[in-house]
Amino acid sequence: MHTKDASLSHFFNPRSVMIIGASTDPTKLGYGLARNLVHSGYPGQIYFVNPKGGTLLGQPVYADVTQVPGPVDLAVLLLPAHLTPQILRVCGEQGVHAAIIAAGGFRETGPQGAALEKECLQIAREYDMRLLGPNCIGLLDTHLPLDTTFLSPPPPPPGDVAFISHSGAICAALVDWARGQGIGISRLVSLGNQVDVNETDVLAPIAADPHTRVLNLYLEGISDGRRFVEQARRVTGQKPVIALKVGRFASRRRAAASHTGALAGQESAFNAAFYRAGVIRAETTEEMFDWARALAWCPLPQGRSVAVLTNSGGPGVTAADALEAQGLHLANLQEDTQQALRAFLPPVASVRNPVDMVASASPEQYAQSLRHLLADPGVHSALVILVAPPMFASGAVAKALIPIIQTADKPVILAVMGHMMIQEAVAHLRAVNVPEYRFPEKAASALAVLSRRAEFLARAKETPVVQDDVDDARVRALLAQAGPGFLPQAVSDHILAAYGIPPVPTALANDAQAAARLAHEMGFPVALKVASPDIPHKSDVGGVLLNVESTEAVVQGFETVMANALQAQPQAEIQGVYVQRMILSGQEVIIGAVQDPQFGALAMFGSGGVEVEGIKDVAFALAPLTDKEATHMLASTWAGRKLDGYRNLPPADRTAVTEALSRLAQLAADFPQIAEVEINPLRVLPAGEGAFAIDVRMRVDKMEE
Amino acid sequence: MHTKDASLSHFFNPRSVMIIGASTDPTKLGYGLARNLVHSGYPGQIYFVNPKGGTLLGQPVYADVTQVPGPVDLAVLLLPAHLTPQILRVCGEQGVHAAIIAAGGFRETGPQGAALEKECLQIAREYDMRLLGPNCIGLLDTHLPLDTTFLSPPPPPPGDVAFISHSGAICAALVDWARGQGIGISRLVSLGNQVDVNETDVLAPIAADPHTRVLNLYLEGISDGRRFVEQARRVTGQKPVIALKVGRFASRRRAAASHTGALAGQESAFNAAFYRAGVIRAETTEEMFDWARALAWCPLPQGRSVAVLTNSGGPGVTAADALEAQGLHLANLQEDTQQALRAFLPPVASVRNPVDMVASASPEQYAQSLRHLLADPGVHSALVILVAPPMFASGAVAKALIPIIQTADKPVILAVMGHMMIQEAVAHLRAVNVPEYRFPEKAASALAVLSRRAEFLARAKETPVVQDDVDDARVRALLAQAGPGFLPQAVSDHILAAYGIPPVPTALANDAQAAARLAHEMGFPVALKVASPDIPHKSDVGGVLLNVESTEAVVQGFETVMANALQAQPQAEIQGVYVQRMILSGQEVIIGAVQDPQFGALAMFGSGGVEVEGIKDVAFALAPLTDKEATHMLASTWAGRKLDGYRNLPPADRTAVTEALSRLAQLAADFPQIAEVEINPLRVLPAGEGAFAIDVRMRVDKMEE
Repeated sequence: MHTKDASLSHFFNPRSVMIIGASTDPTKLGYGLARNLVHSGYPGQIYFVNPKGGTLLGQPVYADVTQVPGPVDLAVLLLPAHLTPQILRVCGEQGVHAAIIAAGGFRETGPQGAALEKECLQIAREYDMRLLGPNCIGLLDTHLPLDTTFLSPPPPPPGDVAFISHSGAICAALVDWARGQGIGISRLVSLGNQVDVNETDVLAPIAADPHTRVLNLYLEGISDGRRFVEQARRVTGQKPVIALKVGRFASRRRAAASHTGALAGQESAFNAAFYRAGVIRAETTEEMFDWARALAWCPLPQGRSVAVLTNSGGPGVTAADALEAQGLHLANLQEDTQQALRAFLPPVASVRNPVDMVASASPEQYAQSLRHLLADPGVHSALVILVAPPMFASGAVAKALIPIIQTADKPVILAVMGHMMIQEAVAHLRAVNVPEYRFPEKAASALAVLSRRAEFLARAKETPVVQDDVDDARVRALLAQAGPGFLPQAVSDHILAAYGIPPVPTALANDAQAAARLAHEMGFPVALKVASPDIPHKSDVGGVLLNVESTEAVVQGFETVMANALQAQPQAEIQGVYVQRMILSGQEVIIGAVQDPQFGALAMFGSGGVEVEGIKDVAFALAPLTDKEATHMLASTWAGRKLDGYRNLPPADRTAVTEALSRLAQLAADFPQIAEVEINPLRVLPAGEGAFAIDVRMRVDKMEE
Repeated sequence: MHTKDASLSHFFNPRSVMIIGASTDPTKLGYGLARNLVHSGYPGQIYFVNPKGGTLLGQPVYADVTQVPGPVDLAVLLLPAHLTPQILRVCGEQGVHAAIIAAGGFRETGPQGAALEKECLQIAREYDMRLLGPNCIGLLDTHLPLDTTFLSPPPPPPGDVAFISHSGAICAALVDWARGQGIGISRLVSLGNQVDVNETDVLAPIAADPHTRVLNLYLEGISDGRRFVEQARRVTGQKPVIALKVGRFASRRRAAASHTGALAGQESAFNAAFYRAGVIRAETTEEMFDWARALAWCPLPQGRSVAVLTNSGGPGVTAADALEAQGLHLANLQEDTQQALRAFLPPVASVRNPVDMVASASPEQYAQSLRHLLADPGVHSALVILVAPPMFASGAVAKALIPIIQTADKPVILAVMGHMMIQEAVAHLRAVNVPEYRFPEKAASALAVLSRRAEFLARAKETPVVQDDVDDARVRALLAQAGPGFLPQAVSDHILAAYGIPPVPTALANDAQAAARLAHEMGFPVALKVASPDIPHKSDVGGVLLNVESTEAVVQGFETVMANALQAQPQAEIQGVYVQRMILSGQEVIIGAVQDPQFGALAMFGSGGVEVEGIKDVAFALAPLTDKEATHMLASTWAGRKLDGYRNLPPADRTAVTEALSRLAQLAADFPQIAEVEINPLRVLPAGEGAFAIDVRMRVDKMEE
């Protein structure tokens, strides 16, 4: 009761519930609340409170909270906002542990409402009460059972999918829709304004519910990014979590000085956070529930090879297309399996994957074929298509398949095509929790999500790589000396070096002669780059000369670069010209990191050069990185795949890239004041020869200390 | 009757139908055929034929085709394959105009079946009969009405969507599923093995049906690509055509020598063909029918600005996300409109787009709000979200909205969220053909397809650009001289020049002085390349010098190149040295063309360089190109968008690019023996300065003449 988690138990396992604002008028929400609680069959003590008194649904209505005769674990307040704080205080006095403020009229209406909300929170803290809401529809648990919502009947059917929602308004519609899909709900929580309990708080308590097999989240945002990731990761190690995050287009890209900053939109940060947390991101509500069913009901596959069994060629082809599009593939059936199928299927049937039994397929043929397919060691899962057969009842096919599916340790998902003609099959399948969809595309998508889940569990125990050979004290000192803004190249080079990222030999020349001498020492060719904190995009102003091959050319080039820079930005502070050894061979990539306001340090990898924002061949992950995340970033970009070699490009030093990327991510995670850092390009030499930071930009924010 | 199209009228408007193989045994398909035809209410004469005779469904069964007493327009044959030819001949003798061969056992079973099928075609030709099938389920027309299928009842509800399918097996399932979605069918045609009538043949006759408002095609392939494009384009000028093309992953990329060839997979060709034809390509069956409803029932929008009206915030945000993802955008509501809404909506409502009336929204508020939104001149269409309201019946909302939607000249699409709680609303909307979906994402997708349709109609009359200043006679002569294989650069340069695509200025010098003079005329720097048919890889033998900057260097370079070449290959015939102007600045793009086996010449545009196959920033279109297609290819690639200028890149000569692209496409279309041609890079100078083919590869196939 004194830890945060324990205190949420009064929401989910209250011994008694009090409804303040219970109404005898059936057109009022306060009646709906009372009705749902009573009709839910809630086994604990129920108290109704309303100044009007009387009786409601056979129970006395108390005029006042103080008159309630027994102890109350959970109070539901449906009152005008301005009355809520004082009643909440009375609840506190009476020893109430948890309260749901269902009514609106708080923060969502303006500053006055926000003040009321804050007052409620203070009172709750004073009395050690936890608050759900305000402006929410409450919660329900179909198994306890408990229903503290005012949703119109019928209530959701009991099931194994929990639904946690920032939007209260959609709860009724989604629960109703899910019913039509044969999906039952275990727990529903509407979070409302989240003055106290938020999306992160409820994760563990809901995941602890034995009736919940999958958690569906409808998110409008996340309050504390890193805490969410931490909590969610703990939960996803046990149960699958699917999130639909709305508001994708609402927040545009932020203004940023680096390519990394410009590309790192809020959505990239959410994707990176969900990836780390093992939260599966759905694009649509349908997808969320479609996936939930498969995750709740199926064993996980050992791999991505799928057998397709069908009684119609067209949908078999569609299934093959959809599986490929999802990154799964058709299993190669063993010769044994094909022979076994050939033994009882008609000659026109295809016994290669997709296995097409043709329209005459009987329930027995379905069952026998599926049994053989699941026995094939090269098959990790099965997608069974049932187009209502002309000669058999679709229900009979479903009945024949069910025992095989139920005893299999491989997932089997059905595409049952049609509407009226397949009702019986659908009813049989739903009754025993076999996922069925109307089209092969959705079945393929469900199989893919099972694979993703299996693959997440394989990497779930991975932790971020943290190198201990870094000199963070030196970086702290360097940053303390440097003011906010872009760091001079020499400083950023030192910082990178302190984290083990080797820069290309570079030195600052104040005049042309010095430049020539430095170039001579390094060896030709060299690059000349204007040194100015005021000119972030040097090449845009003619401030960069490449391939300078001789002493004379360096002397001339120095003057050119200075002149160009001055002409373009007469006010710029120009410190001189960097002379840099040119590493001409090798592949070019970009690595970078930014601080996301929600999730903290975010690392980027991708195709470098000046067109990085146009080509958008980039991947993000939360910093510091796990090994698998670094690998995944390379695998999901062309820039990364190309490192393995492409045409006349030899395989490049991938190890050097992932190491530089991980170290840069660690730097950004260790020093949040580094607002943006970007190495573009990082030039990658052939395997074993290393990767070098050719150009670095690092911007530091004021530290809040 | 003597033109192809007219002859199909016997399928769609037969005065009499004869079923050969009609059966009195209800477990046989021959019974289903007879039952469906009779129960459909077909108004013409019906004849049954079966050697067993007797009566069936109150009609006499004739033992033989010759005994049928009246003339027969359409015969349906459900017979063992080996008996079919002889009976078909009898039909021909009896003056039957059209025949459906429903049975299987033909090409799909092997060579013997294929021979039977061919025999049927010969017989049909002999008697001027048209054939549908074999191996199909026939056709039906819900309005005539006519049903020649053996599908299990119930038959599809009458409606306005025609369905044309290569797969017979899925027809029953899809028609059944569509029923559940409130979609009626006008005509259904199962094409089977297409020995005679194919997907292209049926387009015009079905589009001519006044009851059909949209044509849905389920395609496994296309028999004659260019004819399909031509026919479909004629139809799509009048009525929308949506195609689902399955087998996406079945045909991998073909082996090819050029980047263009490697990237031009079959799917690119289909996309290009559908784009030209105005056929809307659906990715899934659901999408096809979802879109068909909107296209059948809604007026087309004048633009892409959408008003969203909702009683729940969450789905409003989802709708905004989905609209943006679809390339539509939220309309900016006029101040007048916002004021009008504010006048009657509660203060907590949002009168900015999305207009959120909050959960208390009444049917009248819905109606009044929608009226104001549609009156706003900045609004081109509306997406109305209805989450079953707590205080009103959803049916009442639908009823209030319907008169406004029906009288609007702007499309209105509904997202009605839920299942049981919205049945009444859905029933009202379906009864009057208002498209409703369960989720905002689908509603947004439907609105987007209406925009695409409107935009297609705006470009529908465009024809390919054909330049008449090309010298096709010269190309023909050059190609006749060249053998098959890759052409020497000089030849491909001449061919390009004949089509008005300027190569980089290049001239042959026989001695050093001539080289110097030529270089002086062109301007420095120049490249020097040994001219020899015997030295294919010139740079390997030191036969190439780049960046030659002065007259003296040219003189010296000429001797060097000649000496190197002679030393490396003393026997080589050396014609001299090519002097070529070097164009060092400018953006690099790739333009190319290949011959697609299905659709003929296919043009490509995109990001050039060596990584073109990795970056895959390319677009395809059928050659020759229309102006809009060329523009579309540029707009849909980063390489094309970048031509407008990017960072320090000045705007490039787009006109020169589209002209070179169009001319190259025209060349490929005019000369199918040019198997692959690719300019990589085409270097594009700043606006007004042109685009030059730096490197050309052209491969010629043997001509079949």
